Amino acid sequence: MENQTSVSAILIVSCPDRKGLIASVTRFIYQHHGNIISLEQDVDPREHHFFMRLEWELAGFQIPPEQFEKRFETELAQAFAMTWSFHLSNERPRMAIFVSKHSHCLYDILSRYQAGEWRVEIPLIISNHPDLAPVAKNVGIDFHVVPITKSNKAEQEKRELALLKKYDIEFVVLARYMQVLSDNFIRHYPQRIINIHHSFLPAFPGAKPYHSAYERGVKIIGVTSHYATADLDGGPIIEQDVVPVSHTDRVEDYVRKGRDLEKVVLSRAIWRHLNRKILVFKNRTLLFS
Amino acid sequence: MENQTSVSAILIVSCPDRKGLIASVTRFIYQHHGNIISLEQDVDPREHHFFMRLEWELAGFQIPPEQFEKRFETELAQAFAMTWSFHLSNERPRMAIFVSKHSHCLYDILSRYQAGEWRVEIPLIISNHPDLAPVAKNVGIDFHVVPITKSNKAEQEKRELALLKKYDIEFVVLARYMQVLSDNFIRHYPQRIINIHHSFLPAFPGAKPYHSAYERGVKIIGVTSHYATADLDGGPIIEQDVVPVSHTDRVEDYVRKGRDLEKVVLSRAIWRHLNRKILVFKNRTLLFS
Amino acid sequence: MENQTSVSAILIVSCPDRKGLIASVTRFIYQHHGNIISLEQDVDPREHHFFMRLEWELAGFQIPPEQFEKRFETELAQAFAMTWSFHLSNERPRMAIFVSKHSHCLYDILSRYQAGEWRVEIPLIISNHPDLAPVAKNVGIDFHVVPITKSNKAEQEKRELALLKKYDIEFVVLARYMQVLSDNFIRHYPQRIINIHHSFLPAFPGAKPYHSAYERGVKIIGVTSHYATADLDGGPIIEQDVVPVSHTDRVEDYVRKGRDLEKVVLSRAIWRHLNRKILVFKNRTLLFS
Amino acid sequence: MENQTSVSAILIVSCPDRKGLIASVTRFIYQHHGNIISLEQDVDPREHHFFMRLEWELAGFQIPPEQFEKRFETELAQAFAMTWSFHLSNERPRMAIFVSKHSHCLYDILSRYQAGEWRVEIPLIISNHPDLAPVAKNVGIDFHVVPITKSNKAEQEKRELALLKKYDIEFVVLARYMQVLSDNFIRHYPQRIINIHHSFLPAFPGAKPYHSAYERGVKIIGVTSHYATADLDGGPIIEQDVVPVSHTDRVEDYVRKGRDLEKVVLSRAIWRHLNRKILVFKNRTLLFS
Repeated sequence: MENQTSVSAILIVSCPDRKGLIASVTRFIYQHHGNIISLEQDVDPREHHFFMRLEWELAGFQIPPEQFEKRFETELAQAFAMTWSFHLSNERPRMAIFVSKHSHCLYDILSRYQAGEWRVEIPLIISNHPDLAPVAKNVGIDFHVVPITKSNKAEQEKRELALLKKYDIEFVVLARYMQVLSDNFIRHYPQRIINIHHSFLPAFPGAKPYHSAYERGVKIIGVTSHYATADLDGGPIIEQDVVPVSHTDRVEDYVRKGRDLEKVVLSRAIWRHLNRKILVFKNRTLLFS
Repeated sequence: MENQTSVSAILIVSCPDRKGLIASVTRFIYQHHGNIISLEQDVDPREHHFFMRLEWELAGFQIPPEQFEKRFETELAQAFAMTWSFHLSNERPRMAIFVSKHSHCLYDILSRYQAGEWRVEIPLIISNHPDLAPVAKNVGIDFHVVPITKSNKAEQEKRELALLKKYDIEFVVLARYMQVLSDNFIRHYPQRIINIHHSFLPAFPGAKPYHSAYERGVKIIGVTSHYATADLDGGPIIEQDVVPVSHTDRVEDYVRKGRDLEKVVLSRAIWRHLNRKILVFKNRTLLFS
Repeated sequence: MENQTSVSAILIVSCPDRKGLIASVTRFIYQHHGNIISLEQDVDPREHHFFMRLEWELAGFQIPPEQFEKRFETELAQAFAMTWSFHLSNERPRMAIFVSKHSHCLYDILSRYQAGEWRVEIPLIISNHPDLAPVAKNVGIDFHVVPITKSNKAEQEKRELALLKKYDIEFVVLARYMQVLSDNFIRHYPQRIINIHHSFLPAFPGAKPYHSAYERGVKIIGVTSHYATADLDGGPIIEQDVVPVSHTDRVEDYVRKGRDLEKVVLSRAIWRHLNRKILVFKNRTLLFS
Repeated sequence: MENQTSVSAILIVSCPDRKGLIASVTRFIYQHHGNIISLEQDVDPREHHFFMRLEWELAGFQIPPEQFEKRFETELAQAFAMTWSFHLSNERPRMAIFVSKHSHCLYDILSRYQAGEWRVEIPLIISNHPDLAPVAKNVGIDFHVVPITKSNKAEQEKRELALLKKYDIEFVVLARYMQVLSDNFIRHYPQRIINIHHSFLPAFPGAKPYHSAYERGVKIIGVTSHYATADLDGGPIIEQDVVPVSHTDRVEDYVRKGRDLEKVVLSRAIWRHLNRKILVFKNRTLLFS
């Protein structure tokens, strides 16, 4: 189901705002015969900061991808103090999944993987419980059980980090993983750990959000996918979605309705991450279309 | 636009759950020749508490409305320890509006009032500012300015309570009224003061919720109508609704989008209150359809 | 994940409206010591038709389930000309899935099945293509390929009906099955064939609805689950849901966004069917909560 | 409530796609010292057509607004065969409202007008009925009654066109106006007549859509704002929104729920039109953020 059309180059830029930014970058692409397919930009009026995502056809572009980074940095980026990244649309990032016992997000990710919905490699699943090993085995993905207790956490996270390194993992998805990662762990994967929290953050952070929502008597429940940061459930939000509940719904109905949201909203965040459509600035995300 | 069809009687009941409750009440109605139009019931499985709303045609019903309360209490309610209320569908409750300077909720309520959307009387508007007096005047509703300062609050609330009494007000709508009512004031109108808060509670209670939502980087904003209680922004929620925001939206876009939600969600809560479709139990609402 | 609480009895009734209906039925349950957990009723004011779903605890109820049907029919149903059905909450209906090549709905159903989300048996999958056989094999469900051509359709549908009979199937789910079933086939499973159509019906019936939606320039797309009838895409609607699209979305984005809706909305319809929460009357459904 | 910040210039462009388009336009702005605040562009990949909306600060821009059109046309637009328009953010377009008897959309527009939500002038309301004259009078807007019958339609439309000309009207809003405008009339205001239709188009075009939705048994109803074209209810869609309905809702509940959608969705379309955030191409709209 992957789009087999021609490869494109993707550039994501942020820097202090200044006149001539768009003109300079688009001229650079044009001069080297790049045909821009899409350009999205925004300026934060309070921070006077500039953001842009640019995509152009690689075919006909005169700078080879392997030389682009050096040339863009020296010819343009330095002068504007740009923070930037460059990607090709045909990359297949390597992703690891962390799970515990809830299977719905894992099933959802794996069924998309098997159906070829995404351009991704998933070589590794890590869990603190052995329960879902058969699911991984069915799909032929390595499954490592790394049980976590209070006393062994630091040591076990080292094991996990070693596994991520060994499998050459670019980013991590917490598919209802029921352990809190340490700050040290998160620091290894800044803006590269995607979590799903089963509440409409910032409402109901922490444990048992559906129970809390029921107690409070809200009329709509939600879920939130976000990048993990040292601030638990406080990282930059990627996607949120909601579903109405009624007074006839019990906590188990919240769980049932929420489960469907969780898997869809987590997968939407993964899709966006894979497609290089997220830019993080000061704990907020810009989502490109 | 009012429904001119025949009058119906409405009974709202809650009590400890017990076998035979529905059978007893429906038999009572049937024996006196009442034709039930709608019945909704629910049981809270943790609290073992029973809730029911019953509506039947008054035409042909053999107990005159003015005798119903006494007979239902002695013949049925006492035996089941029921909390209950009885209404007729053709009542026109008297409602007061409290406003400050924001006009959108007031305009929305008044345009429905003028168009005859609701069965209600609105004889009184109270404000802590004179700004919206012309709007009230246009519609021919008395407008009283009661300015509130830290030092005069207790005294001014007495004036407001006196006005509510004088105008024989049954319930109060806070249409973006920017003052916090005292516990004493609220105690006079339990479950009869409807507020609109411009956030998706319990997220962002208190002041400047749109600014907080922007700072946090949420992807969806919401509003909440609820009954006012001594717990600020903590009362039983009646209606909530949400609207997506994008990274290109600034705080003023949040305000613009939220404004439309606020007026619609407040008016939905008023409609539900007027139609006797709300039952409050332990800080949660049951909303009948 | 099945709710292991006590078994309940479910009664679904419709009949011409009449005074005393609720009183009579609830009295019948009460007299035999049934404790009603939930009652929902409605009256169609134009058709003067009455609808009710009643659920009570089986424990303590003095009529054994195997005698209920006979006694209810003779003692109550006949007098009111009721159409009715009786179920137990611990039944496990047998369901067959029809698929073609699209796998997302199939994966979604099977992952719920494996996770034990539903009380159901799925012994049979039928497809007009062999492609998804491995998916079925993984889960250990029999997979029969029944290719359909214009010339062999009648004959092949006979084979399918024979399979449904052999596997003792109660209801059928068309999980993006790309063949139109004949009227004859549908007649064997009235209100027991659930289809998912990838448009917000009645808009865009028939083939390629996402393409049509794109051409028309709608701002929201939707999907519809419904019971199949002889009227293609015209049967009683069970569930619908929608998702916004923007002008930057291409048809392939519609397909991607719609895919997530399709699987969730189809599964919601199956859940509702399994939980005996649907009543069909004159091509419309009542959905009990 | 109008944004009193500095004035900006807005340029909306469409043309056949070509390399260097963005670079050329942004360079033109930059060379004349314009600081771009926002740029949105899109390419229709099937039509190979390019679209862009550009906004820059007028302060410091070296081409005076009154010379911009000529210079842009000769120096840039002709070479790329652009269709384009130029606006200033502080313009106050003149808008006329057409109404019949339903007042909710009219009230909504007028309350926004009075509250200063929009940058607009509304000097004229035209109706085929006298009923809403008092509403217009209250706000001090001229109200002309132009009754339409089959026999006088052509003549009366001439009167309406003369009024629009006399009041120097830029665009027209049909606020639940219950007459079909002739093709001739519409031709005078291409993409400048905004209509609200009370269905989720293309479902239920024409008369009595809520009744049709009820009959069909849909689970969600919607409304659609669009530019009027010769194809009734077939013009380019601007905004749509939806609300769930349940089987307990009657047609009058559809009307009540739909009324709130209608006014909000019509007003959103007006806001977008006023803010020059709509581009029409081949019966589809691009909505800029």
